[in-house]
Amino acid sequence: MLDRPVITLTTDFGLKDSFVGVMKGVICSINPDANIIDISHSITPHNIIEASQVIAMSYKYFPQAAIHMAVVDPGVGGQRRPLLIAADDYYFIGPDNGLFTPIFEGPHYFMKVFHITASHYYLPLKSATFHGRDIFAPVAAWLSKGVDSSKFGEEIDDYVKLDIPKPMVSGGTIEGEVIYIDNFGNAMTNITHDKIIELGMDLSEGKLKVLCKDMEINLLNYYLQAKGAGLSALLNSSGLLELFIYTDSASASFGIKIGDKVSVTSI
Amino acid sequence: MLDRPVITLTTDFGLKDSFVGVMKGVICSINPDANIIDISHSITPHNIIEASQVIAMSYKYFPQAAIHMAVVDPGVGGQRRPLLIAADDYYFIGPDNGLFTPIFEGPHYFMKVFHITASHYYLPLKSATFHGRDIFAPVAAWLSKGVDSSKFGEEIDDYVKLDIPKPMVSGGTIEGEVIYIDNFGNAMTNITHDKIIELGMDLSEGKLKVLCKDMEINLLNYYLQAKGAGLSALLNSSGLLELFIYTDSASASFGIKIGDKVSVTSI
Amino acid sequence: MLDRPVITLTTDFGLKDSFVGVMKGVICSINPDANIIDISHSITPHNIIEASQVIAMSYKYFPQAAIHMAVVDPGVGGQRRPLLIAADDYYFIGPDNGLFTPIFEGPHYFMKVFHITASHYYLPLKSATFHGRDIFAPVAAWLSKGVDSSKFGEEIDDYVKLDIPKPMVSGGTIEGEVIYIDNFGNAMTNITHDKIIELGMDLSEGKLKVLCKDMEINLLNYYLQAKGAGLSALLNSSGLLELFIYTDSASASFGIKIGDKVSVTSI
Repeated sequence: MLDRPVITLTTDFGLKDSFVGVMKGVICSINPDANIIDISHSITPHNIIEASQVIAMSYKYFPQAAIHMAVVDPGVGGQRRPLLIAADDYYFIGPDNGLFTPIFEGPHYFMKVFHITASHYYLPLKSATFHGRDIFAPVAAWLSKGVDSSKFGEEIDDYVKLDIPKPMVSGGTIEGEVIYIDNFGNAMTNITHDKIIELGMDLSEGKLKVLCKDMEINLLNYYLQAKGAGLSALLNSSGLLELFIYTDSASASFGIKIGDKVSVTSI
Repeated sequence: MLDRPVITLTTDFGLKDSFVGVMKGVICSINPDANIIDISHSITPHNIIEASQVIAMSYKYFPQAAIHMAVVDPGVGGQRRPLLIAADDYYFIGPDNGLFTPIFEGPHYFMKVFHITASHYYLPLKSATFHGRDIFAPVAAWLSKGVDSSKFGEEIDDYVKLDIPKPMVSGGTIEGEVIYIDNFGNAMTNITHDKIIELGMDLSEGKLKVLCKDMEINLLNYYLQAKGAGLSALLNSSGLLELFIYTDSASASFGIKIGDKVSVTSI
Repeated sequence: MLDRPVITLTTDFGLKDSFVGVMKGVICSINPDANIIDISHSITPHNIIEASQVIAMSYKYFPQAAIHMAVVDPGVGGQRRPLLIAADDYYFIGPDNGLFTPIFEGPHYFMKVFHITASHYYLPLKSATFHGRDIFAPVAAWLSKGVDSSKFGEEIDDYVKLDIPKPMVSGGTIEGEVIYIDNFGNAMTNITHDKIIELGMDLSEGKLKVLCKDMEINLLNYYLQAKGAGLSALLNSSGLLELFIYTDSASASFGIKIGDKVSVTSI
């Protein structure tokens, strides 16, 4: 294992309560060398799809063997299983509620999914309502100390997958939708750079038409190019088609929200 | 001392200003090996009771010898003393304004309280308004490097205790109140699992009646059990009676706020 | 280099999205020993002056050789250059848009400014919209591993400076303005303790008159002294004249906002 193994956290716990701090306390009580990095604790409460997108956009930027722990878990205490996933270079730990759908969907050259049942790795006093503290944090910490992933439970293949909306292709048009609004009010869609290239579309200036809410939107390369130009589009740093306004909120100004349809067509 | 001694931070400084970062800079300038963990910086400004509850709910989940620094300090610069507390396995550093009342109240098998006066451990330029930076952070850092707690000042026993509301028992009823609303809108009360057990009450299904605002509320074991059931109650992961709605905000939906009365009675 | 080199982060990325976590992932992939400390991620979107003030108030509290990375960058992808500054005991990394004006203005005994062009230190896949991830984070990480600052590009001296408002002195009066509102609603001005001393003004009680919005405001030493006294002033922990109300928001109560004029005169 690394000298400073990385454990990332993604939750809907917010930053006011002590929940996040407590999980970090549990982790560093077991592994003082863990390097704990917050991805987000401001996922909309109970929004599993949003959390799955935040993880999908970020997990590859961490060092090999990083452990990505995610807790958005309205079913805590019920029948849903705690999971440990080993996929390519990374580990994922969290509830079996679809949170890791983008990981399951791959592509990956290697993946094993374990139902965590080895309760001797849990905190001694297990509550029914805070598995982040009592199960996921200690399992992440023990894994980061080098315990083999197969020690935490049986391998399974009937894990839960969410039906995450995919873009549709018909004729020369890709029809997708807005899947995420960021801090700047930029609206990310599920239309990817890879899909546009795969269809042989031409990304050079003036060759593609982007449509949303009956507006025709210019496709540019970076934000500054849209200075004074109103609603614009670009392929963003995650490889997703994104609608934006230069130094303003596309979401607020045009009422763009998650689920709104967006299309791309060759001119 | 540990290789990576833990210092936790709890403040009302918020996350926009540089105050928290500056305290971390001071700490790691003195002890580069300190493992600084945020508990919360979003305590309601000047709310000492809220901060004391956040600390009480979290401090035990950190490794032995962890230093819990808390700065909610409307009296900074005035007569209130800076304190260092050694209690059982933990240290606490902050102003003498009642913030550490739950620690003082115990139970603990060991406690010493020091009035911090050893100004050679302070930053050279002491301001009258930011003791978090100028006194508490450097003292925490030096303590984490192994300086004995008795070196920072004289032991005292006239520290400030707040009058934190306690539940009352009369006949077969415990009458308590809401003491904290969390990120999900769950309302935690001061009625504890331990108190219910101590009174010989029966926690099995249908044996206890929970009342709040003239509503009779079902006592369940975990959140999912309340799916579609409206306002419900459970004993939460901190051992406190909590009012909640499944995937919704009890506080927002029923106007439940801090100070609202809640009672538990055997049926 | 230090065993645990410090890299601080100041951005307008907010805490919901994965942007900040991703930059940390990039940094610790290159240098697992980096000690990454957040200064703020809640800078008002695109507000370069606000970010420059947050950095100016905090950078000196970090250990020698700390690397201060700041990304408030509406011109990302365009002509503006990425910069690395070595100034006295610290490094600064970010866009050439004026963010580091207070560093350029000094005083400093040593400063070199480099235009970052050594693209072999960038992430392999450079996007046009997220230089925080693709250029600044990896350059900060390599610098923290001991790569010499001159290796990242050519020295320049035509970097961008913003016109940050300075207080004016006429007769016995200093006329300044509000430059920052903090989490408590305290209003910091650009009138400094040093300027007041330089002009030979007398800071003892009752010798100075502070004026804002036609109100005459008492100058005190610490917050508690203003209990029950309404709008008051003090010289704060950054050495700036600050308007405040004891345990209340001066900004909200008196509508004080950035740009409001404030003056100090000897009585």
